[in-house]
Amino acid sequence: MIRFDIISANVNILNSSLTHGLVSRTIAKGLIEIKVHDLRNFTNDKHRQIDDLPYGGGSGMVLKPEPFFRCIELLKSERIYDDIIHLSPQGELFNQKTANSLSLGVNYILLCGHYKGIDQRVIDTFVTKEISIGEFVLSCGDIAALVVIDAIARLIPGALGDSESAITDSFQEDNKFDHPQYTRPETYNGLSVPEVLLSGNHKLIEEWRTSQGTEKFKKINSITDNKEK
Amino acid sequence: MIRFDIISANVNILNSSLTHGLVSRTIAKGLIEIKVHDLRNFTNDKHRQIDDLPYGGGSGMVLKPEPFFRCIELLKSERIYDDIIHLSPQGELFNQKTANSLSLGVNYILLCGHYKGIDQRVIDTFVTKEISIGEFVLSCGDIAALVVIDAIARLIPGALGDSESAITDSFQEDNKFDHPQYTRPETYNGLSVPEVLLSGNHKLIEEWRTSQGTEKFKKINSITDNKEK
Repeated sequence: MIRFDIISANVNILNSSLTHGLVSRTIAKGLIEIKVHDLRNFTNDKHRQIDDLPYGGGSGMVLKPEPFFRCIELLKSERIYDDIIHLSPQGELFNQKTANSLSLGVNYILLCGHYKGIDQRVIDTFVTKEISIGEFVLSCGDIAALVVIDAIARLIPGALGDSESAITDSFQEDNKFDHPQYTRPETYNGLSVPEVLLSGNHKLIEEWRTSQGTEKFKKINSITDNKEK
Repeated sequence: MIRFDIISANVNILNSSLTHGLVSRTIAKGLIEIKVHDLRNFTNDKHRQIDDLPYGGGSGMVLKPEPFFRCIELLKSERIYDDIIHLSPQGELFNQKTANSLSLGVNYILLCGHYKGIDQRVIDTFVTKEISIGEFVLSCGDIAALVVIDAIARLIPGALGDSESAITDSFQEDNKFDHPQYTRPETYNGLSVPEVLLSGNHKLIEEWRTSQGTEKFKKINSITDNKEK
């Protein structure tokens, strides 16, 4: 079982999202455990203030160091963590290899920032991995945490109803994209399923699927290459 | 105001997440409107079946074409859409430029797949843009939709409390990462805020921040480059 401790300033987003979908089913099966820790519970002042103005000026608010220090030190006194992960646009880009690798761990702390981020001393002191889910900015790291946990949860054996599903995913093989999918009816609105899929010839079907995935990969890469020029 | 129509097989994930955080505040301010359409409401059979086995065999279930056709055709008869977007690992990689560009539109339909995806005839007939939030696989497109909507919503003028915040984000300038942030206390656990930030010299502060952002960018790019070798 993997345990995730998420330290958050937006616990409502996490609590509501984690009670639906694949992640909630994975929790119910005992395959993962998720504890959401509200930063406000680790403040000492009566206003439970978690953020303050940035030193040096500028817009936005910065999450204060003390609540993170208190929460992380408490958690670290209770168990050993594989990684303390900061979800940040400055992190390493998250991909399927990272998801595969993290799915083999046992305990993780995820730090979710918002506004203009977390006081750097928290990151310098505790963080072992900074992860970005993409080259875009979100209102908070909690949404990125949902993405990372979903990507990891579905890889745990038993999480998906059909154990073969995760292995045949896009990105699990280099340079191979998923092929187009069709289901009933055979013809709908004048549009038919490609004949090869109805042929019953497994070798031909496999060849067609591989060629479709590779074509799509080439097409998208050529779009990306052109854009970079 | 931007309107998003989301067609989904996992409406609970969307409905719960959209009622918290920045997106819910943006809705309350009348800056965006989000309608979640349950695929099951567009079925005609008493079991309200939305998926079926893939033609040609293989694991996983494929979302059927009819509910999508009915829902999309109804929506298209009511208004003009800028884009009909399929959230898919096969799509173009979502980044801040895409978010900026989409934040200028008015009406979007988002199609969220799950299991092994959506019948290809839906995509061939309607979809004008396929977006992937990253090179990893999620249990459903709904989580990707949350990411895309959050990234867009925060760019709409008035969405953020401090209007300057979005402009000084990471990724809004080429090759520039956000700099480290510090807030009070000045010294915590023996860790001090960098002296330059306390200097009151705005020119020096700006130079330090720019150099920190650029250093971070170089460091991460060199990690990525080494990995690709």
